[in-house]
Amino acid sequence: MDNRPIGVFDSGLGGLTVLKEIMEIMPGESIVYFGDSGRAPYGVKSKETVIKYTLQDIRFLLSHDIKMIVIACNTASACSLDTVRDRFNNMPVIEVIQPGATMGVKQTKNKKIGVIGTIATINSGVYERAINEIDKKMQVFSKACPLFVPLVEEGPEWWENDITYRIALQYLGPLKNTGVDTLILGCTHYPLLQKTISRVMGDDVEIVSSALEVARVVKNVISKNNMAAGENTGTVYKFYTSDVVEKFEPMCNAILKRRINSIVRVDIEKY
Amino acid sequence: MDNRPIGVFDSGLGGLTVLKEIMEIMPGESIVYFGDSGRAPYGVKSKETVIKYTLQDIRFLLSHDIKMIVIACNTASACSLDTVRDRFNNMPVIEVIQPGATMGVKQTKNKKIGVIGTIATINSGVYERAINEIDKKMQVFSKACPLFVPLVEEGPEWWENDITYRIALQYLGPLKNTGVDTLILGCTHYPLLQKTISRVMGDDVEIVSSALEVARVVKNVISKNNMAAGENTGTVYKFYTSDVVEKFEPMCNAILKRRINSIVRVDIEKY
Repeated sequence: MDNRPIGVFDSGLGGLTVLKEIMEIMPGESIVYFGDSGRAPYGVKSKETVIKYTLQDIRFLLSHDIKMIVIACNTASACSLDTVRDRFNNMPVIEVIQPGATMGVKQTKNKKIGVIGTIATINSGVYERAINEIDKKMQVFSKACPLFVPLVEEGPEWWENDITYRIALQYLGPLKNTGVDTLILGCTHYPLLQKTISRVMGDDVEIVSSALEVARVVKNVISKNNMAAGENTGTVYKFYTSDVVEKFEPMCNAILKRRINSIVRVDIEKY
Repeated sequence: MDNRPIGVFDSGLGGLTVLKEIMEIMPGESIVYFGDSGRAPYGVKSKETVIKYTLQDIRFLLSHDIKMIVIACNTASACSLDTVRDRFNNMPVIEVIQPGATMGVKQTKNKKIGVIGTIATINSGVYERAINEIDKKMQVFSKACPLFVPLVEEGPEWWENDITYRIALQYLGPLKNTGVDTLILGCTHYPLLQKTISRVMGDDVEIVSSALEVARVVKNVISKNNMAAGENTGTVYKFYTSDVVEKFEPMCNAILKRRINSIVRVDIEKY
């Protein structure tokens, strides 16, 4: 039994899609969430910069006596996983690439998998490697979609409008023509555009959102290591961000579908 | 005579549109440019965060023995000008709001001025105040255009395409209907979308890009204070960024239309 919280972080708000699934399938676990909105987005920045930010984010979470680290950001996972596992080897580190890749391989029938993500994630080639480590016969087709994150952050009225559809068509048209039967959403923001992405890709292309899969991995690791929180010990959710809280709260409420009472600002560069 | 360089900074690459004009009308002046690409964009962040970043950017420039500070970023100008003028009162500080506002008032015939910019700039209300301080009868219509910066950073093939036109139409359509005869581009990225913006607003709406106007103000202040560099003393341009240099260089070359030889990475949070 381990009542310490799970530490979850993202470059900003996208990681809340992962957090939501963790809250739903593990309602007894306490969580500390950090969103680096003051330096977001990570996806257009260099590997070097993303690693530096990721290490600061984790050092902040560790100051909260967490039992586990969840990197709820594809860009941070893609750029820093090796460094993180190397430096913080005394506790489980869960990332979002492997669960998505595993799910993609499970879903595909024609062994053609599409992957979309930020520039940093796609340039890293991390999905191709993860997928081909599972099955060398898989063909992977990747495409960076840099405008998807700002479109999500424009708010819900943009998520399914015609402009977003046309941008999706421009990015995904060539990907559809490759004949992929499965598309991995390699960015935690993208599930919020899932309807528009599906409209472009067609009903016969399976969309894989890793959020639920990541939550399942977290649950497995907790159970395997006997790290579950005791029953009725009182679940505590703590939210931190590197920008002010006014911007964080509405998005938090919209994605998590529950009211968040306390969000605290952090000077992340001190960590 | 003062051979020290002019210090110019922006949240990232937009400030290069201002830099270009300074280089053109003051070819004898040395310049130190800092682009905070590692924390860009500023326009979606809070005033508090933008002030913190702006002060760090300026402290970095001051470490290069500059003679003058140019805030080549509307968001930084809008959020931090009072704080900056207060703290660094021993040298001229030039910002981008006042020159744009002055130019807008000069241009308009029907006293209806449109202003577009980032969320932070528009929410600050700084243009309304600056314009109405010059002439109380001016009517100001403002609109934040958050997708314009990511569209510019997608690269030149997006600047005039149909998707960008439709996004511009969505943002600017209501502004056009107000009957403004002048539109101030209140963000240093926006001159790169000027053709598309003009296509929406129509030929009878005058577009005011403050870049050239800011350069003229810099020249005036230099001449008024006898701070011009000596002739034939050798002009030196130094470029710094908080992200790695590979991303900075192509955009630098595209906007400045000249090859930049040396760009150095800086750990800005130490300043």
